[in-house]
Amino acid sequence: MSDPLRLGIAGLGTVGVGVVKIIRRHAALIEARCGRPVEITAVSARSKSKDRGVPLSTYAWEDDPVALATRADVDVFVELMGGEDGPAKDATEAALAAGKHVITANKAMLAIHGHALAELAEDAGRSIRYEAAVAGGIPVIKCLAEGLAGNEITRVMGVMNGTCNYILTRMESTAQGYNALFVEAAELGYLEADPNLDVGGIDAAHKLAILSSLAFGTQVNFDGIEIEGIQRITLEDIRHAADMGFRIKLLGVAQMTGRGLEQSMKPCLVPSESPIAQLEGGTNMVVIEGDAVEQIVLSGPGAGEGPTASAVLSDICDLARGSFLPVFGKPSKTLEKAPAAMSASAAPYYLRMDLKDRPGAMAKVAAALGEAGVSIDRMRQYGHVDEAAPVLFVTHKTTSQSLAAALEGVAGTGVVLGEPVALRIEHI
Amino acid sequence: MSDPLRLGIAGLGTVGVGVVKIIRRHAALIEARCGRPVEITAVSARSKSKDRGVPLSTYAWEDDPVALATRADVDVFVELMGGEDGPAKDATEAALAAGKHVITANKAMLAIHGHALAELAEDAGRSIRYEAAVAGGIPVIKCLAEGLAGNEITRVMGVMNGTCNYILTRMESTAQGYNALFVEAAELGYLEADPNLDVGGIDAAHKLAILSSLAFGTQVNFDGIEIEGIQRITLEDIRHAADMGFRIKLLGVAQMTGRGLEQSMKPCLVPSESPIAQLEGGTNMVVIEGDAVEQIVLSGPGAGEGPTASAVLSDICDLARGSFLPVFGKPSKTLEKAPAAMSASAAPYYLRMDLKDRPGAMAKVAAALGEAGVSIDRMRQYGHVDEAAPVLFVTHKTTSQSLAAALEGVAGTGVVLGEPVALRIEHI
Repeated sequence: MSDPLRLGIAGLGTVGVGVVKIIRRHAALIEARCGRPVEITAVSARSKSKDRGVPLSTYAWEDDPVALATRADVDVFVELMGGEDGPAKDATEAALAAGKHVITANKAMLAIHGHALAELAEDAGRSIRYEAAVAGGIPVIKCLAEGLAGNEITRVMGVMNGTCNYILTRMESTAQGYNALFVEAAELGYLEADPNLDVGGIDAAHKLAILSSLAFGTQVNFDGIEIEGIQRITLEDIRHAADMGFRIKLLGVAQMTGRGLEQSMKPCLVPSESPIAQLEGGTNMVVIEGDAVEQIVLSGPGAGEGPTASAVLSDICDLARGSFLPVFGKPSKTLEKAPAAMSASAAPYYLRMDLKDRPGAMAKVAAALGEAGVSIDRMRQYGHVDEAAPVLFVTHKTTSQSLAAALEGVAGTGVVLGEPVALRIEHI
Repeated sequence: MSDPLRLGIAGLGTVGVGVVKIIRRHAALIEARCGRPVEITAVSARSKSKDRGVPLSTYAWEDDPVALATRADVDVFVELMGGEDGPAKDATEAALAAGKHVITANKAMLAIHGHALAELAEDAGRSIRYEAAVAGGIPVIKCLAEGLAGNEITRVMGVMNGTCNYILTRMESTAQGYNALFVEAAELGYLEADPNLDVGGIDAAHKLAILSSLAFGTQVNFDGIEIEGIQRITLEDIRHAADMGFRIKLLGVAQMTGRGLEQSMKPCLVPSESPIAQLEGGTNMVVIEGDAVEQIVLSGPGAGEGPTASAVLSDICDLARGSFLPVFGKPSKTLEKAPAAMSASAAPYYLRMDLKDRPGAMAKVAAALGEAGVSIDRMRQYGHVDEAAPVLFVTHKTTSQSLAAALEGVAGTGVVLGEPVALRIEHI
């Protein structure tokens, strides 16, 4: 029998406990599939005494994750603590320096420090694997890096934050506004300690940055992503979109263009009958387009103990089987530093703005749009509420540059209250 | 630089030509991703002189695929000829005996001879890889064998024959009958040389047999699959199903039960709003359920030059990267010989039968169903056409045993013309 693969697991929250449970429950199955046993040598977490509903006393305990990561009897350091810096990064670096492979679910750390960590890993001849960092139980990292290795990837899109999707779908189904559902999500424990990570689109953008690097062979570039959260989406937007045959989703889009890498994570309108529009709650969906494969669509649970642990186990089994790649699919020295490009490909947009109750207001707005070359496909004006009349436009295809110019023109008219909402319409 | 991985490709039809094109187009990309070049050493096909739209003169030519498979300058034999026996199997065996890895898109060969071939491969310390054999461009083999390696798989379902799906969706959209659309599919070149492979459900069942083996760690058992084609589905069935909120799909289902492995490939009713119901034409969809991951859904093009070649390239890149598993995910000696179980889990059924125009006919049929313990959820009777009145039932959940008893009872009443159509309703 071959030597066991020995794990040191740091972080015993939902995911860590899920991993321990699977390794205990499926020891024989995993050994049969990997050709060798997978064992947990040692664990680490904040509190040793907390009851986590799974026996831990047979594993060595380390208070310090760096000590865990560098133990001589650990082959693979499994980092499930989270946080882009601090103990997670320290222990990851220590593990690589000590010649361990690293498995992590930490999208923030990879989105910010991924390139530097990949260089460290490759210098040490080790790998960092992170199936659980993106889209929970869906094997999207494996599909991109291995299953589509013969493709030039042309576009990656996805709905990858369950909390945002929960709030947006509940707004539609319960007819409650954003604020009420933000509170509901918080009460259900769906929000990160810093809720802006979720509703501000940051968490989903972390995931997109990782997918982009893998897809396009570029250095992970979180700062190059145009990010917009869902906080300004109103119940009226949801209803108006539905009236016109659309749903609103926090959608990530990454594509390589002649001018650079376009990455955006923003609320978008998608056709109601499209698969992506029908995603409920915590289900994630990733759409990958390649020059040979055309388009594949993957969906599944984006979070939760079982699904995320399943993804960690995929990495564990790969390492046990002796298979690993460079961190971002190609040696980090060959990853290009692609310039970030504003999303300039033309698309139709949904615009909502509040017109002042003043003669000629609509004509001024329409003129401002026209002067910037933005033409209108559909328009609806609703009755006045207080001083303002909500007006909706769906534009013909236009670039984000033209749209920005149009919005500047609209602001200059002086007949619009507050900031217009502009959402891209994606036909997937 | 590392040594190149040298391929011998047998079969230069759509898929073979697609593979050659990708390797030429993406030589640099593949080398960067795999850490070594991938080269074609030699090719083989029926006709050397045929213009295939891609330059082949730089590759050695072999008339005999066995000679190709055993060349000293070939590391991997790529079998894209098809056919469960004959040259494909001979060359595969010869390649393994000569110490080559094999990549194949040949679901028929694997469904029938997969276990014996896996034993040969493992004895030789080589692998057979077959991402392209199931669901075209969708990396479903990789997802099952690697991406979900930490799961006990509980169920696998899928729509995996584009031709059947094309005919069924066109029946609904054009209101033409099965025969007219069979002819249309033939004219479009969508049918295999033996059309029964497609419309009889055989091709899709081959794919299901392979997925079952991988999912459940069992010896591939094509003969254990209950197979029913789409030939008896009428336009009326499609319409009646639509009236009741369903669509008809040729659906494969495999699950392990206490009594053995249930595998079926049959036309089923699925809810119209479910993702699987909305599959159009050649798009395939596979649903995988595991104890940790819950459920993931993969969809994409199930055939065609680019998508299928993309799948072959996935296997090529894995071998170039040095990663390969036992053929069916576990050593073949550990694969269980699971007994085939009739699908006995209870489900609702759609029944259509033609009642003779005779007083009391309906009462007799209803009594026969009731006596077998099959209770009726919904019933519709339509006007008489000639001597017969079409009657539809949707039953409450019942087992296939009870249903078989009920249909026997119905036949005994003497008031039914021809054979009833019984289709399982799957809520996915």
